[in-house]
Amino acid sequence: MAHDYGLILAGGRGTRFWPRSRRHRSKQVLNVIGERTLIQATVERLRPLIPPERMWVLTSHPLRDEIIRQLPEVPREQVLAEPVQRNTAPAIGLAAHIFHSIDPDAVMGVFPSDHVITRPARYRRMLRPAFRAAREGKLVVLGIQPRHPETGFGYIEFPKGVDPGSTTPRPVVQFREKPDLATARRYVRAGRFYWNAGMFFWRASILLDALRRYLPKTATLLSALPGFRDRRFFTELERAFPLCENISVDYAVLEKSSNVVGLACDDIGWSDVGSWEAVRELLPGDKDGNVVRGEALCQSSRGNYIDAQGKLVALLGVNDLIVVDTPDALLVADRRRAQQVGELVKILEQRRRNDLL
Amino acid sequence: MAHDYGLILAGGRGTRFWPRSRRHRSKQVLNVIGERTLIQATVERLRPLIPPERMWVLTSHPLRDEIIRQLPEVPREQVLAEPVQRNTAPAIGLAAHIFHSIDPDAVMGVFPSDHVITRPARYRRMLRPAFRAAREGKLVVLGIQPRHPETGFGYIEFPKGVDPGSTTPRPVVQFREKPDLATARRYVRAGRFYWNAGMFFWRASILLDALRRYLPKTATLLSALPGFRDRRFFTELERAFPLCENISVDYAVLEKSSNVVGLACDDIGWSDVGSWEAVRELLPGDKDGNVVRGEALCQSSRGNYIDAQGKLVALLGVNDLIVVDTPDALLVADRRRAQQVGELVKILEQRRRNDLL
Repeated sequence: MAHDYGLILAGGRGTRFWPRSRRHRSKQVLNVIGERTLIQATVERLRPLIPPERMWVLTSHPLRDEIIRQLPEVPREQVLAEPVQRNTAPAIGLAAHIFHSIDPDAVMGVFPSDHVITRPARYRRMLRPAFRAAREGKLVVLGIQPRHPETGFGYIEFPKGVDPGSTTPRPVVQFREKPDLATARRYVRAGRFYWNAGMFFWRASILLDALRRYLPKTATLLSALPGFRDRRFFTELERAFPLCENISVDYAVLEKSSNVVGLACDDIGWSDVGSWEAVRELLPGDKDGNVVRGEALCQSSRGNYIDAQGKLVALLGVNDLIVVDTPDALLVADRRRAQQVGELVKILEQRRRNDLL
Repeated sequence: MAHDYGLILAGGRGTRFWPRSRRHRSKQVLNVIGERTLIQATVERLRPLIPPERMWVLTSHPLRDEIIRQLPEVPREQVLAEPVQRNTAPAIGLAAHIFHSIDPDAVMGVFPSDHVITRPARYRRMLRPAFRAAREGKLVVLGIQPRHPETGFGYIEFPKGVDPGSTTPRPVVQFREKPDLATARRYVRAGRFYWNAGMFFWRASILLDALRRYLPKTATLLSALPGFRDRRFFTELERAFPLCENISVDYAVLEKSSNVVGLACDDIGWSDVGSWEAVRELLPGDKDGNVVRGEALCQSSRGNYIDAQGKLVALLGVNDLIVVDTPDALLVADRRRAQQVGELVKILEQRRRNDLL
């Protein structure tokens, strides 16, 4: 019988969570919501379906040690650093190559490491049929029921009559790139367009076949790698991986395949927590809408997000601010600009302030 | 010949400078402007006229050690802690008693410890005639030319034709209490109303005479004290001082005396730096009006005051904020509320947060 493997993609930098996020402490290893970090919560909610010994993590060199520390239950040799940052097609292709070299019948689920799901049991109800369809040879995607006309995500178009929460996979009509606002509104009204949250399920062998067909250069590079247990594996990976194409699996494979089915989730409490403002929306606030992590004294102040450890933050007559304090950097931002925090990080990079990156 | 003595009043708490100001680190011992603290700058600018060995400081118990540390040139026994906080009449009366007990001909100048004067040479030009008139037996006040219709200060009414910067003392027509805005505007237009900055000059003996006449209870308590060199002095002071009246010298003596003359300063660059906003106005800013003490990265942000040591402060899309960071407390306030920072301190007192006071 085929085993289910989990691939957790943890290569992102999450610069919008500066100054908490740094090169060595990216969003997925931060406890932006709750006590556990996002990657710990990811492993935790998958655990009833995928035991840690079949869980693998792909990340970057600066984050690897921290992830190993945070996930003691995952065998450390299964936490791999990509030699360079590529998009999802080479990363998933690499994992498929490894799984296939270990277990030719391997079925894999792909999971981002930095999302929040507040209803994990309801989520797992959707994972079981997803793995089942994957075992049967399908390329499977999970769709998230949209809550608002988001322009920052791609959409999955389901056939008419799609039923959120149904555990019967439906053929995907089409993948839609990030839309403009008018289009996004139309999608939400139509009721059969779902957010593509980057969660995929397939046999490793089927994904490798698809790569050979749609991304032959990358497929050739990966298939030339020795088996994972071979001692030349990492040397060869260092050489080959940078030559792989920088492209997403959605664009390289899914949009071109006819073999794709989807499962339309009902409300599983998913969020990609894309910014401090998203965190503010997810956490409970006081009567004036101030969300405080740490200790604060808020006078005549509304709608603020405060994150500071080991000190009191006093607000006086200020509204709609993001205040995040760390030992060497303090951010004070209008929360409507939370998406632009990454631009501050770019400026610090230009100024070579490696101490703050 | 009579010697000139300096009395520096340093008992204030300066809670509007929280979180930098604390019980043991009040406004006068902070370097709110420039490198030196306000009390160090006060001694420095008086030094050409009053040598440190004739300089005395009245402060409170929590601040005494810090002031001794900051003013090594002032003999430490001349830095006195008031047993309890009273207003200026008992404090100045006490100093007059001490000076008179040392030197019956003593002439004293009274100086707040927490003001800024950016043109000290021009200021000293006014001090010489002030001391001279005091020596001749007058009660002398210094008037500050008003720059705007301030309602937070008392005013000194000079006779018509008063000439700012003139070194000839003029009789004071009347002291005016803090006015409402309309009255303050009238004062500024009239051109002969000057701010009362709490700088006074008189013979110790004359002030003691005036106290006996206008504030007999306090005068009796103070005159019963033994001489400063007497070893019973401090014990007796602890007993007597709390019984003195809690009243200002302006109200107790000056408003009632006919013997008062004034010197009208021209622009000596005086400021009482009453709040963080006043500091912001005094210091040079960047092209967007951001004043930074420490290091900041300001994006789409205007008119902010930033004070943080040992960390970078990044502002994104915020205007007119006061941001003051310390190791255990961070203030983020609308600068139009800078006067209300003291209210935060009151709340912390109610909550018995002595660690932050």
